[in-house]
Amino acid sequence: MDNSKTISKKTSSNFHSKKRRSVKPKINEKIRIIPLGGLDEIGKNMTIFECREDKFIVDCGLSFPDSEMFGVDLVIPDFSYVIENKDTIKGIIITHGHEDHIGSLPYLLRDVRFPIYATPLTKGLIENKLSEHSLNGEVEIIEMQPGDRIKMGCMTVVPIHVNHSIPDAVGLAIESPAGTVVTTGDFKIDYTPPQGETTDLATFAEYGKKGVLAFMADSTNAERRGFSASEKTVGESLEPLFEKASKKRIVIATFASNIYRLQTIFDLAVKYKRKVAVSGRSMIKNIQMALDLGYLNVPENIIIDAEMVNKYQPEQIVLITTGSQGEPLSALSRMSSGTHRQFAIGKGDFIIISATPIPGNEKMVTKVVNGLLKLGAEVIYESMYEVHVSGHAAQEELKLLLNLVKPQYFIPIHGEYKHLKKHAMLAQGAGIDEKNIVIADIGGVITISKDGISVDQSVPAGQVFVDGLGVGDVGSVVLRDRRHLSQDGLVVVVFTVDRATGEVLSGPDIVSRGFVYVKESEQLIGEARQKARTVLDKYKDYEYKDWMVIKSKIREQVSHVLYQKTKRNPMVLPIVMEI
Amino acid sequence: MDNSKTISKKTSSNFHSKKRRSVKPKINEKIRIIPLGGLDEIGKNMTIFECREDKFIVDCGLSFPDSEMFGVDLVIPDFSYVIENKDTIKGIIITHGHEDHIGSLPYLLRDVRFPIYATPLTKGLIENKLSEHSLNGEVEIIEMQPGDRIKMGCMTVVPIHVNHSIPDAVGLAIESPAGTVVTTGDFKIDYTPPQGETTDLATFAEYGKKGVLAFMADSTNAERRGFSASEKTVGESLEPLFEKASKKRIVIATFASNIYRLQTIFDLAVKYKRKVAVSGRSMIKNIQMALDLGYLNVPENIIIDAEMVNKYQPEQIVLITTGSQGEPLSALSRMSSGTHRQFAIGKGDFIIISATPIPGNEKMVTKVVNGLLKLGAEVIYESMYEVHVSGHAAQEELKLLLNLVKPQYFIPIHGEYKHLKKHAMLAQGAGIDEKNIVIADIGGVITISKDGISVDQSVPAGQVFVDGLGVGDVGSVVLRDRRHLSQDGLVVVVFTVDRATGEVLSGPDIVSRGFVYVKESEQLIGEARQKARTVLDKYKDYEYKDWMVIKSKIREQVSHVLYQKTKRNPMVLPIVMEI
Repeated sequence: MDNSKTISKKTSSNFHSKKRRSVKPKINEKIRIIPLGGLDEIGKNMTIFECREDKFIVDCGLSFPDSEMFGVDLVIPDFSYVIENKDTIKGIIITHGHEDHIGSLPYLLRDVRFPIYATPLTKGLIENKLSEHSLNGEVEIIEMQPGDRIKMGCMTVVPIHVNHSIPDAVGLAIESPAGTVVTTGDFKIDYTPPQGETTDLATFAEYGKKGVLAFMADSTNAERRGFSASEKTVGESLEPLFEKASKKRIVIATFASNIYRLQTIFDLAVKYKRKVAVSGRSMIKNIQMALDLGYLNVPENIIIDAEMVNKYQPEQIVLITTGSQGEPLSALSRMSSGTHRQFAIGKGDFIIISATPIPGNEKMVTKVVNGLLKLGAEVIYESMYEVHVSGHAAQEELKLLLNLVKPQYFIPIHGEYKHLKKHAMLAQGAGIDEKNIVIADIGGVITISKDGISVDQSVPAGQVFVDGLGVGDVGSVVLRDRRHLSQDGLVVVVFTVDRATGEVLSGPDIVSRGFVYVKESEQLIGEARQKARTVLDKYKDYEYKDWMVIKSKIREQVSHVLYQKTKRNPMVLPIVMEI
Repeated sequence: MDNSKTISKKTSSNFHSKKRRSVKPKINEKIRIIPLGGLDEIGKNMTIFECREDKFIVDCGLSFPDSEMFGVDLVIPDFSYVIENKDTIKGIIITHGHEDHIGSLPYLLRDVRFPIYATPLTKGLIENKLSEHSLNGEVEIIEMQPGDRIKMGCMTVVPIHVNHSIPDAVGLAIESPAGTVVTTGDFKIDYTPPQGETTDLATFAEYGKKGVLAFMADSTNAERRGFSASEKTVGESLEPLFEKASKKRIVIATFASNIYRLQTIFDLAVKYKRKVAVSGRSMIKNIQMALDLGYLNVPENIIIDAEMVNKYQPEQIVLITTGSQGEPLSALSRMSSGTHRQFAIGKGDFIIISATPIPGNEKMVTKVVNGLLKLGAEVIYESMYEVHVSGHAAQEELKLLLNLVKPQYFIPIHGEYKHLKKHAMLAQGAGIDEKNIVIADIGGVITISKDGISVDQSVPAGQVFVDGLGVGDVGSVVLRDRRHLSQDGLVVVVFTVDRATGEVLSGPDIVSRGFVYVKESEQLIGEARQKARTVLDKYKDYEYKDWMVIKSKIREQVSHVLYQKTKRNPMVLPIVMEI
């Protein structure tokens, strides 16, 4: 940390002395922490830190919708608190370059601009992302390194190097008048990292010795016993597969951001004298950037254009592709269904899926595996070999960090409730008093001082849905309707009336979609029409016709007859046309 | 097998001698096997066996819909081949009482009736199921036992005892003029079963020695190494949890049909002096039947009414419930959301989910776990303790059976393609020639003789969807519409025209559901209306108006403008009212 530098927009003297003595909080100094984003995983996508009048943001990521969020493309945090407080927010620190930590930046930057601090690779990934949204150059991205001291008003943020499934990830120490808060970000401990250093345990320990007010740590794998496997073991698992594939073309699907994995694959390709082609837009883009920034070291002439693959013998090729999660539009998925424009899969292919299905994606991955196997390919996937390791710390690593950091208060983050709870139990086992552990809620304001920790108010927070170009225009009503439509379809009851007399001039007609095969259900549709007619007849002689009431009556009666006959509940949509 | 009896509707002499010498097939004798049902899992729900003019059915189960089958309740096999051949079908043999083996019987029996052969517990479960559909007594259910010889025309079926996660499961030996086919049904090998005997390895071996033409075996766990754990280990895992729960109420969720698991729980309740209450309709029904048939042994006064639970101290109660798969309407799910009528969950509850999520259910189970934890309960679930074991054989068991049965031909069944493929590889490893292994397709006719195995034709087969009361009236068009509606909702464009002149009298009006918040999108809806009006204006002066063409034009134009503005593709439904 000798080459650490202080990054500060103001040139005012540092709050902390260079020697960084133990921070002695003044009476009543408080730090507030608000997890603003994350879908199931609390404190993941976005967190805000506040002390006195100063605020800064950590991460600005997105989540992918679950199966109940019909038609939603992305889920971003609710920015209203950020926008409301924009004048006191000093900047955004990004811990690493995964989508769930950078993906919402383009949406935030539509409304507000803050300087963004990121390590070099993360900075490259952010720039890629902003350029997709034509926002490049619109905001200042400041490169940071572990050990730098970034002033955020009365707080100083110090990035700490950690291992993760992407290079250049950091945890943070946040030195504040109220005391120091340490957060791991997403992390694991890899004693034999393929590149760079092991998670900087010494710095975590140093803060622990000086005294840490609160510690926030990654709970993703809090249920896993033992210690996470090193990324290096993947290389050890992949090499025998390269041997085994001998006469076949190798196709490997993995995460586009896992530069370590990509380096391993390139190294093996060199060793086994194969050329490498790349398929999938995000994969091509990330590899290009990692090469430019020097995060990937690949000899010249190894990478060939995907168009050239068929000019080589199968045993001369490694094809790296996206689609390791079975995403329906990905390159691998199209290969599995025989609809990929360039690559036809067959007996000559040896396919390795170097990833674990994210919960919820299991079925999609299985579908892809089944498809590839049916085409005659050999397929290696996670449950068969160690072709993937997690980027998150398991229980023994979490306990080690708890022991090094020795915090007064503990806040498990990055996980669903069950993971946070498990992590809380681990912390209790490590000697932290139950009353000093807080499991946060999204939007809950965690207030910490030397004298206590509490969650006693909350700010507007939660999930905003992105659907197509729309941000926030799909809400619970729209989703409820989509859900309803998805279950039993739609029955429209439409009729035309005379505006003056209220006389029914035409209809009621019935149009249905997604309900039953219409031609098989003429009788049923006839009964529904009859029911609607009966309602209309009943109101025939009313002088004033309240069409809202009549429509509601039709909806009720038609729904009832359809349910009786089919035990289904289509959405019944009465429409009155007035002429 | 001394007490074996021959069950035959005719009194004709047995085809096979009592000594059961090795079956010497005549030249050209063939047996045909057709997997008729199953969704992802081939040969699971229903299989038909044919030799000469005789046919019989094995199992008649259902599958649950996957997430793409919007609104579908159940998936049953296509019965058209069965109905077409009903005169030559001699009966149905049921291997065990799980839904995926008996659940379609009520639907089949609407069209055709055959005698059903089942072991006692399976028979009880079938009777329960038929009574739900008011079909009890409508069909002959004949009790069978392992070792019985059931005549099916020229074939004789001999049930063989196997272990599974439900008692009274059997595999089958099918002795035919073409040779003997052996199938395992769903099975595992449990050397320490909680009740009854270990899988009857001796009989499998006996058939192997005499010569088996073809072997069909359960591939569900073909990817799992080693040997499945005994059901007894669950008892060993549960007991310390009963100790740990000491002062708390114990709530255990498991499968209603897993009688062994239920017996274990009752035994522990007796030992720890707790009363047992039961929640969930299927659980209550199954326990009652298992008690009646003597499959559950429970001292008197142990079971109390669920209404009485709150009259006891927490430490005096075990509550057995359904919902181990996170099913949204199940008792456990309602408890987790605080909406259960009888049981409020809190700090005094110790909850054990004694089941593994079936692929696809992981998210639902996690949601329930998170909910229960938030209410303050302690929750034990699969990834933490050995509170569940699988009912299916792992690799070493599969290899053992392959070695005992030593078939000429091998047909892996009960699994998705990847499982069948893996099982095929295991069989090759066990010495079966690759060309003697066939992976079937649903509807494919596997023809086997001493001289060869082939799949060279297929019969109508596949999935029929049950939605509410409708069977088969939801097909691909309806599902496609539901899918479309679920993604981006609906935009109705409706207008009234003069039948004679074609003049537009009213509209076009726009009604949308599940698309965007209407009040936030008035401008957008206005543009869509304008676009529809432009199309109508264009056709204004046409003498003959083809409304099909005009509607299609409106759909195209309105879809286009909406996509441009929102990047969404709602279903656009133009409706013309004529007066």
